[in-house]
Formats: sequence, structure tokens, C-alpha cells
Amino acid sequence: MRKYVFSVCILLAVAASASAVVEAPNGPAKYVFFMIGDGMASVQIHAAEAYLASVGANDIDDGGLNKSTDLAMNSELGYVGLQKTWAWNQLITDSAAAGTALACGHKSYAGAISVDPEDPNLAYKTLAELAKEQGKKVGILSSVSLDHATPAVFYAHEVSRNNYGNIGFQGATNGTVDFFGGGTFKDSKWADPSSMWPTFEANGYTIVHDLTDLQNLPVGTKCVAASSVTQDSQAMHYEIDRINSGANGEWSLAEVTEEAIRILDNEKGFFMMVEGGKIDWTCHANDALTSIYDTIAFDDACRVVIEFAKAHPGECLIVVTADHETGGLTQGWAGTKYDSAYQNLTTQTMSFQAFGRWLSDYQSNPYSFYNIVKIVLSYLEPDADLTRVINLIDDLDMQNKIEETFGVVYNDLSALQQAQLEEAYDRQMTGEKIRGSEEDYLIYGDYNPLAIACTHIINARAGLGWTSYSHTAVPVPVMANDPSFSGYYDNTDVAKKIAAAMGGSLN
Amino acid sequence: MRKYVFSVCILLAVAASASAVVEAPNGPAKYVFFMIGDGMASVQIHAAEAYLASVGANDIDDGGLNKSTDLAMNSELGYVGLQKTWAWNQLITDSAAAGTALACGHKSYAGAISVDPEDPNLAYKTLAELAKEQGKKVGILSSVSLDHATPAVFYAHEVSRNNYGNIGFQGATNGTVDFFGGGTFKDSKWADPSSMWPTFEANGYTIVHDLTDLQNLPVGTKCVAASSVTQDSQAMHYEIDRINSGANGEWSLAEVTEEAIRILDNEKGFFMMVEGGKIDWTCHANDALTSIYDTIAFDDACRVVIEFAKAHPGECLIVVTADHETGGLTQGWAGTKYDSAYQNLTTQTMSFQAFGRWLSDYQSNPYSFYNIVKIVLSYLEPDADLTRVINLIDDLDMQNKIEETFGVVYNDLSALQQAQLEEAYDRQMTGEKIRGSEEDYLIYGDYNPLAIACTHIINARAGLGWTSYSHTAVPVPVMANDPSFSGYYDNTDVAKKIAAAMGGSLN
Repeated sequence: MRKYVFSVCILLAVAASASAVVEAPNGPAKYVFFMIGDGMASVQIHAAEAYLASVGANDIDDGGLNKSTDLAMNSELGYVGLQKTWAWNQLITDSAAAGTALACGHKSYAGAISVDPEDPNLAYKTLAELAKEQGKKVGILSSVSLDHATPAVFYAHEVSRNNYGNIGFQGATNGTVDFFGGGTFKDSKWADPSSMWPTFEANGYTIVHDLTDLQNLPVGTKCVAASSVTQDSQAMHYEIDRINSGANGEWSLAEVTEEAIRILDNEKGFFMMVEGGKIDWTCHANDALTSIYDTIAFDDACRVVIEFAKAHPGECLIVVTADHETGGLTQGWAGTKYDSAYQNLTTQTMSFQAFGRWLSDYQSNPYSFYNIVKIVLSYLEPDADLTRVINLIDDLDMQNKIEETFGVVYNDLSALQQAQLEEAYDRQMTGEKIRGSEEDYLIYGDYNPLAIACTHIINARAGLGWTSYSHTAVPVPVMANDPSFSGYYDNTDVAKKIAAAMGGSLN
Repeated sequence: MRKYVFSVCILLAVAASASAVVEAPNGPAKYVFFMIGDGMASVQIHAAEAYLASVGANDIDDGGLNKSTDLAMNSELGYVGLQKTWAWNQLITDSAAAGTALACGHKSYAGAISVDPEDPNLAYKTLAELAKEQGKKVGILSSVSLDHATPAVFYAHEVSRNNYGNIGFQGATNGTVDFFGGGTFKDSKWADPSSMWPTFEANGYTIVHDLTDLQNLPVGTKCVAASSVTQDSQAMHYEIDRINSGANGEWSLAEVTEEAIRILDNEKGFFMMVEGGKIDWTCHANDALTSIYDTIAFDDACRVVIEFAKAHPGECLIVVTADHETGGLTQGWAGTKYDSAYQNLTTQTMSFQAFGRWLSDYQSNPYSFYNIVKIVLSYLEPDADLTRVINLIDDLDMQNKIEETFGVVYNDLSALQQAQLEEAYDRQMTGEKIRGSEEDYLIYGDYNPLAIACTHIINARAGLGWTSYSHTAVPVPVMANDPSFSGYYDNTDVAKKIAAAMGGSLN
């Protein structure tokens, strides 16, 4: 099934690569598309490309395996730059400081939502606000919650990214945004949760929660397309889960993008920011295949935008970039040396997040193998310390789930990997930090130990490595259909270049 | 002392950044500079930039610390591209396949020196050979041996990069190269070692071994500037050792580049390839500061080239790139999360290689603390197993050397780090793979366990992580003074673009 999905993607990519790249804007851009893959550096993109080539080996002419198949964001835009992501107060940025730089052209502190670092009461003008001044409409789309840092920096000004209620309230009331779409808002964070949708409605927004309703909205509708079947933290599902589990028919980022374009289109044009927000979240958890799926989902949204631009030659600016890299992903791992085998990743069927949900259910289920054995043992030996008397080698239910989820077969693992998985099982079930806090964090971060142990095993098998559960300072690429974006520059320059291409300026 | 050296660099960088970027060639380029940082992806470059900013915090206006200071290769050339490095037969390339792509515009197999993968008797035309056809002179410079893969692909054709004798012999006799400079040739690999220099001389080359002699060579001299004070494998010293130990006055890559330009200059121009070859070697060993020094040394060579180009506006093409990334370096490490402190690297005073030399001497010295204690114990307890009875905590000589070399103070380390260092000490002294072959390789690669343990500790302290002791498939940047190099493409396209900018073509 997954194979089929990607074969289609590859054929599209091959077909698309034959056509010319998107024409540069021939004056101030009428339509501006700012596509931000959160946490998506060159390595995330190229891992997806190499994966597509690996799984599509039978579908493309040159054998494909272990080569790479360009994503649309790379093959269709013509110009490349590299941007440095450092924040005002630290080399490794967060999405708020990076977003402020990308939206306003100013460095600020980690956590800042488009405010000055030394005077947080001073709001920076954003590209979306510039678009509004020019009479354009504005669309803000994200696969995570619409009050998360990256979307927020375009329409709100707050001292902290964590002030979700204030951010959402600004979005509902300040008139900057005409179309919100993707995930939804953190209603639980509003001072009065019951008033969230009424507040939007009072400000002229129509609220829709499924694709058909969205597709039926007339052109020009001011709206919030908010998923009602979110997976975690008011975000859309990870793409791997959306595809494999159905996710109750949740829309794709590309589908929302397509509708946003249709609804926003008008004679003065629009500014649209589309964020692939869950690339970052899965890279925090070092889950490579989930990151690859979300990168491809984001590229599918780019493809929608590119098709629109091809139909409107000379009128569109498209800029695809990231706010920072996440996870310290690299396309090489010590144990596999010069070998790569991304096709081995296909044995994974759900995200670390979905597996974590299953783990939570299993651990709290009184009838799970683990809990039954524990109860029996506690009757048999009431005084014994039952910590670590049950091993993964005995828990066939867990072994089966791990095989089903990751394709990791306990008995086929090396002695070292078996030991790592046993230790993760102990750590997962007992909560005990067996190697102490410092080493425990290095091995598992703050994630489910069994999820991390399994993704690390299959990533290693593919030949992929990670160095962190946080962001990194690796420069990130900028792909654009405008030659002014070639070069090496700061993230603040991206905003300035976009403003210039719009024929305007920031403050 | 090191602080002072870098302060000067920073001031230069700041001064240079104020000037305009190098003018693009206004026709077929008379002078072509192909600068290849072996193993140098964006992350190696940006780590050097962030290091310069960190150590120069007091010297630059904006505080500097934890930001970054552009290298000349990034600030002076104007255009950026990204290239994919995959080889004909594998995603993760080697320097031979990547070099063949960069020199000839064709994918080939790992190990290939400018020959066809399916018919290794078929030689591909190289950019240096194209230059010769155009009547230009050719210079081939490298900080490693001049018969190593990256220099070799420009002037030789061989089925294997390991055929050093054949490669060198081709270089001496086929007339492609007018100036060889940097390290030297692997004379021990020649069929008749005594005939190596006579062969070069019989073909019209003058051989020089020190900077003064090189500086005294007349313009137009066909020559080999071969270091006679090489550090390892006929390569120049690591820059950190060249600066800190003096290295018997060995020239810098920038100095050889400057002389090559002077000697090669002629009315038809020249093609010059300059390789920063030891960036790769130090990244294999995951030694971050040594890689930063070599990256800066390579950038100093770029700076020489850039100055020449500014004095010859419109006549020069400069392309700076890498053949691949090495080591899976990233600018983030799990344990330091969002923090970075590159200034902590300054406590390192020599390369892993120089420390390895000291270790070798210590281990073979019968009067070392370790060997004396071992002999005494063997007298006292002749039947005891003396493996691992001596610990690093007792070996103050070793502790002192580690402190002097890396600034790592045993007593200041966390319990986890002390345990890691003790284990590395056991592994170093006994050779026993304490955790088994698989985990042993993951922890130490094929390197000196104590060197790896120490560099990993100080890299982690700075906030830098590694995933491999081999190369990776991460795309690498291309910086150039010609807009045709913007975009996302294969490494083979780099050669084709250079050939086009020379007004010629490859086969």
C-alpha cells in the first residue's frame, strides 16, 4: 500500500522534473507563498529523496536504489540559498525566534512572537501585515496547531510563544488573517474556552472541520479550517498515521493548501504561509520514517503551490525553507559505515506517537501480559522486589507489537540490540532510570524508551544517525523561484528579500 | 596565542565582508579556481564560523558569542547551490567517485579515478585536461598527498585509488599538471621508490621542499612543491599542529596557493584545484576543533584566490565545494540540548593524530607509569590477571597529558564521563574490546580509544555531535561567483557548469 502511494509520487516527480522551473516574478509578486518546513534542513529533504528512490527502485529508469529522487521543492524552483538560523540570544534557535526572523526580518530571543528582544512591547511588522497594507489577503496554514510559534509569528505579537490563548485571540480579532487552516487552536488555553469559536464567528470567520465543507465554501469566505480529528496537541496527524490509519478522513496539508488558494484568490493577490510543522516534532523524537512522510506531505503542498504558479507565470513568489534543523539527523551511521538501505524503513507502520498511545494503553491495561504476570508473581512472592523480573524476551505481546509497528524482530537482532531493547523495556515498564539520569537522557530523551529504542534500531539499519532531541544550528536551505534568494545569509534576510519581492518593506 | 590568531582572522573577515563580492566572469573564464574542502558540508563550515564568533566575542561589535562570523568562502562569492553526492553504486560516496564526478561530470564507483564504472579502461576527460586543450596551465594542490583520490581524479585515470604508484607516475609523465603543491607523493608505493623524483625531474619538474625555495622559483617553472615534513601518510600537518607545534616551518595551504598563482600565471590563464584534504581526515576521527582549524586553513586559501580574483575582475571563476560530508557532524548534541559553547573547544591544543603519536610512545615506553606498575605487579602477583588492574584515576601522567591536550580534567567530569574515560583507558592499554566488537566500533571506530573518548567529551561540551566514522550522504554546498551555480543538482553538474564557464565541454 505504502509502496503504491510512493510510486505515484515518484512518477509525478519524474514527470514534473521534465518541465521547466517556475518563472520568477516579473515585478512585485501578486501571490506570495512562504513554505516553511519546521525542522527541515537539507538532510531531512535528501533523506526523503533517497527513501523515494529506494522504495521506487522498480519504477524509475536508472535503477533508483540508493540514489535519490528530487522533491518538487528542489526540482521546480531554480534557485538555492543557505540561511543561518541563530537567535538573538543563542546559536541554536527555537521556532519562535526563527519565525520572528523569517516573518519580520529581526533577530529576537527564543520564545519571542514577533517582538523586540530588548523591549518586548515593541511589535515588529510581519510579512502578513505588509501584505494586508498592500490590500492582499492572508492565509496561515500549518499541520500543527494554528497558534503554534511558526504560524503565530505572522499574525500575533507576544512576549512568549506559550501564551496560546492570547495568540489565538489576536488571530481571531486583529483582522490580519483571512484563512486559517490545518490543525486547530488550543481552546483549552483560552481564558474562556467556550468562547473561542464564538469569538472567531463574531469576527466574521466561518468555521469548518472537514474537507467537504471546506470545498463547499465560496471564494472569498473568511474562514478557519480547523481539523476536529487532531492527533496530539491540536495538531493534524503525522502523515504516516493519516495515510495508514485513515485518521477519520482528516485532510492533508496539500488539500487545505489547494482550498486556501481557491478561497483567497482575488485581484490584489494574497500572502500565504504554509508550515509543515510535524517534521520538527518527529525529528525531536528521532523517528526518521515519520519525518520522511511528513516531508513528502509538505512537498505535496509545495507541489500544489507550484502548479498554481505555473498557471500564473510571473505573478508568484515561492520561497521554501526551514526555521532550523531538528534532531541532528545525518545520512550516515557509524555501524553501517558506507552502506545505506532506506528501503528497510518501510517495515515501520505508524509514528512513535501512535506507538506511544498503544504503549500507554498496554501499560494501563490490567489484563496485559505484563500486568497479569506481575500480579501473579506478587501473590506467589509477596515480599520479592518485582522490578525487572519480567523481560521482553518473555513478553510476546510486546514483541509482536514491536514487530508489527517497526518490523523489528527480537530474535533476529544482534546481542547488542537485544540488550538495548531489553533495557528499554525495563525502563519503559518500571520508569527506573537504570543508567542514571545523564545517560538515560542521552539514550531516550524525554520520550517513550521503547519507541526511541525501536526507531533508533531501524534508523541504524537504514544508515541514518541522530545527535540530539533538540534543534541544531546547522544552516538550512532556501529554495525559491527568484534569483535574489541565492547566496549565504541570515534568516532575517529571508524576510527582507520577500518584502522586497513584494515591493514593500518591513520596519 | 590561538586567540590572537583567530582575532586577526575575524578582523579580516569583518573588513572583507564590507567589500563587494567577487565579480562573475564576463566570458569564458581565463582563471579557474576549483576549491574542494574534502568532507566539508555546511555544518563543518558553520561550526568554524560559530567557533570564530565565540572565541572572538570581545573583538566584534555585536557581542559575537554564540552567533557566527562568515568565512570568506561564504561572504565573498555571491551564489550558492547544493549538490547531491551519491556515487554510481552507492548513496554514500567516497572521494574517488565524488572526485570523478566533480572532475569529469560522470558518476562512477567508489574507488574510481576518472574512469567509467562499466568499462574502467574508458578514461573520462577531466577539467584539467580540458584546460590543457585550451592552452591553460594546470595547478593541483592538496594538504594531503598529491596522489590521493581528490587530486588524482584531475590528472590520472586508474581503476583503483589505491594504485598510488601508477597515479603518481601518470602525474609525473603525462604532462597534465604544471604545478603540484602541498603534501607529497607516496614514494614508498612506487615500483622503484628511488626513481620517483628522478622521474619527475626527467619530465621537466623542479622539486622544492620549503617555502623559501618555492618563493624563489621563477614564474613559469614547472614544479612539484612537496612538503618534506609531512605528518601522516605523506600529508601536510593538521593546521592545529602546524600552528601550535611549528611543524618544522611547514608551509600553509594558503602560502602554497599564493605561490602557485604567481608561478602559473600566463596570458592564457590557468585551471587550479586546491583541496583542503585533512578536513575529511579529522572528521573521520570526529575531532571537531582540528576540523575547524583545517576548515579555516582552507578558507585562508580561498581568501588568497578571492583577492586575486578581485584584482582580475571578470576573468576568474571561483567554485568552492566539497566532495561529501564526513563524520555526520551536527551542531547540536543531546546532552547540551539548546546550548552551545564552542569557546570550550579552545582547551584542545593538538590533533587526535598528534595525541595518538604521544599515546603510542607512552604505551611502548618501558618507563611509563603504566608499564612500570604492570611490571611491579607481575612480580608481586605472578599468577594474577593484570588486565584492568591499573585505572586512569591512578595514572596521573596520563591524566596530565589528557588535561594538557584536551583540557579534560578527570576529577571535574561527571560520573558518566569518568566511566567512559576509564573504559577508554582500559581499551587503549589492553586492546581488549570490553563491550564486544559491535559496540566497541560504535564507540571508538578504528581510532585510539582515548583520543576518541576525549574528543567526544569536549565536542559534547561545546554542543557538537557526530554519527559516523565514515562519510555521509548529506548534500553539500557550492559557493561560486557565477549565478549558474545556484540551484539543486548532482555533483556531476558541478563539472559540467565549470566546463561551460570555461567555454568548453567534457565527454
